[in-house]
Amino acid sequence: MYTDGLSMDTKSKKILTAFKKQGARVETKARVKLKEKKDFSLWYTPGVAVASRYLAEHPEEARKLSVKKNSVAVVSDGSAVLGLGNIGPYGALPVMEGKALIFKEKAGVDAWPIVLSTQEPEEIVQVVKAIAPAFGGINLEDIAAPKCFDIEERLIEALDIPVMHDDQHGTAIVVLAGLTNAAKVVKKTLKELKIVISGAGAAGTGTAKLLIAAGVRDIVMLDRTGTLYAGRENLNENKAELAKLTNPRKVKGGLDEAMVGADVFIGLSGKGLLSAGHVRSMAPRAIVFAMANPEPEIFPDVAKKAGAVVVATGRSDFPNQINNSLVFPGVFRGALDRGVRQITEAAKLRAARALAALVARPAADKIIPDMLDPRVVKAVAGAIR
Amino acid sequence: MYTDGLSMDTKSKKILTAFKKQGARVETKARVKLKEKKDFSLWYTPGVAVASRYLAEHPEEARKLSVKKNSVAVVSDGSAVLGLGNIGPYGALPVMEGKALIFKEKAGVDAWPIVLSTQEPEEIVQVVKAIAPAFGGINLEDIAAPKCFDIEERLIEALDIPVMHDDQHGTAIVVLAGLTNAAKVVKKTLKELKIVISGAGAAGTGTAKLLIAAGVRDIVMLDRTGTLYAGRENLNENKAELAKLTNPRKVKGGLDEAMVGADVFIGLSGKGLLSAGHVRSMAPRAIVFAMANPEPEIFPDVAKKAGAVVVATGRSDFPNQINNSLVFPGVFRGALDRGVRQITEAAKLRAARALAALVARPAADKIIPDMLDPRVVKAVAGAIR
Repeated sequence: MYTDGLSMDTKSKKILTAFKKQGARVETKARVKLKEKKDFSLWYTPGVAVASRYLAEHPEEARKLSVKKNSVAVVSDGSAVLGLGNIGPYGALPVMEGKALIFKEKAGVDAWPIVLSTQEPEEIVQVVKAIAPAFGGINLEDIAAPKCFDIEERLIEALDIPVMHDDQHGTAIVVLAGLTNAAKVVKKTLKELKIVISGAGAAGTGTAKLLIAAGVRDIVMLDRTGTLYAGRENLNENKAELAKLTNPRKVKGGLDEAMVGADVFIGLSGKGLLSAGHVRSMAPRAIVFAMANPEPEIFPDVAKKAGAVVVATGRSDFPNQINNSLVFPGVFRGALDRGVRQITEAAKLRAARALAALVARPAADKIIPDMLDPRVVKAVAGAIR
Repeated sequence: MYTDGLSMDTKSKKILTAFKKQGARVETKARVKLKEKKDFSLWYTPGVAVASRYLAEHPEEARKLSVKKNSVAVVSDGSAVLGLGNIGPYGALPVMEGKALIFKEKAGVDAWPIVLSTQEPEEIVQVVKAIAPAFGGINLEDIAAPKCFDIEERLIEALDIPVMHDDQHGTAIVVLAGLTNAAKVVKKTLKELKIVISGAGAAGTGTAKLLIAAGVRDIVMLDRTGTLYAGRENLNENKAELAKLTNPRKVKGGLDEAMVGADVFIGLSGKGLLSAGHVRSMAPRAIVFAMANPEPEIFPDVAKKAGAVVVATGRSDFPNQINNSLVFPGVFRGALDRGVRQITEAAKLRAARALAALVARPAADKIIPDMLDPRVVKAVAGAIR
């Protein structure tokens, strides 16, 4: 399954060995020296009392003279990790630590992984509120739908620092950026696209809402039961809302029915879900974003052979990596730099546009800037204001 | 008041300017490189899924292949900060950040400051339990007595990582170390010392208990009301316990009464509390540890003029700095390196002994190793097993 031809087992063993050998992938670093007595007198006792007294009286200044200036908590309860599902805090930890690593390397943001031993929404809200004072932003991550919506909403309301559930909004921004360029490649407009979104969880929901805000009119969403449509039974609050916002043609059934004639497939669901037959049933010049991680809904070679013109995944080892890593470092860089308290819909649209615009000449294998492109963070950060 | 002769105001302004110019004093740092696509494939997606799957199945391995290996949360609710009192999370933040700085510079521990927007004991316990999975240790700090005792006890019981309220135990260890050498200087034994401890909060309680464990027999403790003795009215649970453990001569009254004939004064209370008259009323060859921060109970020159032979404070700008910074980095270094889950009484006694032993020839102005002494962390860490 992997591009270098190694079997999953051999590859996995090599990776695990690397992680074991490495230990931690992020650490802390002193930004002042502690070499002489006077360094301790200034930065610890008695000097630190001056800063403490000052911040006790001017808490809003914490953003200027403490770690709060540049820090983000990457918070997960491990209830919906990558494509792996509910694997708990320890399962989530490597991902959160990886994000902290990317935050630093890409955007100079001091992010620290926080994984929670609770999965109760009420408690998650309470814990994040409790630890918020030392952080300049909260990146919620891999928290299952539908609880993630309420958790994010309540934290945005309660806190005076930016809170973003990256699965929803990071995904939405990068998908919209990729889709903007993919549409150019196949010479279709966003407004005329018939889009199927497989997965009505956090990522699917965030993506559908942002695409609609960008002008998309025809989205059919699917959960495990089938398409979402107004009046379907057993819809939770979030899906009932999505059912109203999407599916204007009232498509019923499963993926087989939804894919017929579709211009775009956006997979935010699970591995191997999409078959070559599904792709063959799509409209001409089809676009396939198979973003399940770590294993996509369909592998690029299969999708292309079945007729898809533009194919993207979430992975670094294929072309067109539609990955949140293109977004979250810049979003928080911009928010921290400008003291932005809320990541608005308008800012997300601007960020997607800025990201898309970095690809001067979109092509089938180049719809999104590369993760290594040094312009990415600046472009996204510039949109957050 | 300050040794360089500057007034408090001028000095404070200079310090505040330095903190403002500096911003954060700690940051994060990548321990792996993210330069090429293959770095992302390994350390983020898809590679990270292998580590996630593995830790989901083997959570106990998080200590080997994640930040948990070397990380400590420095947690405070800001309810009892330095000598400043209840100044809340933002007031506490510079101190916690300073500790994180010292943790890294002295012991290579990756500590991150966590200040809480709640001061409810129940909630503090819940929050620390919730965030514990990504940390290898919990340093509780500047949490007011008496709630700090119950909070620490419950967390030690609930978590499988070391939890230490540094105000209690860090202070106790460093005081015992200093006192061991001070006693040598004045040629008295620990067992025969009459000791007054001013302050029956976290530090006073931890110190009294460890001194007793070390063989001290005659301690008189004072809170704001006066000496603690069995049967005194209005004693909370903690003070009632202390009253039983201490004051064998049933001394009643205030500091005036307690200080008469005392060999040692240990100040863990508030600035300016001890007068020259108090020191003059002590036994010959008196020892004064005036450790209130940032301003001691009595300044060293005044205490010495009044007859004290050994004088120590908590500050870096006087000789004999009896400061927790000599202890906490080594305690957690040792605990992390050896996977120690609980800092036992025996380990604390060993740590104090190891610290004292670093001073080959104790003298009036040299009872405790210097903060800059590179042997300190190793000696303390070696005691934690």
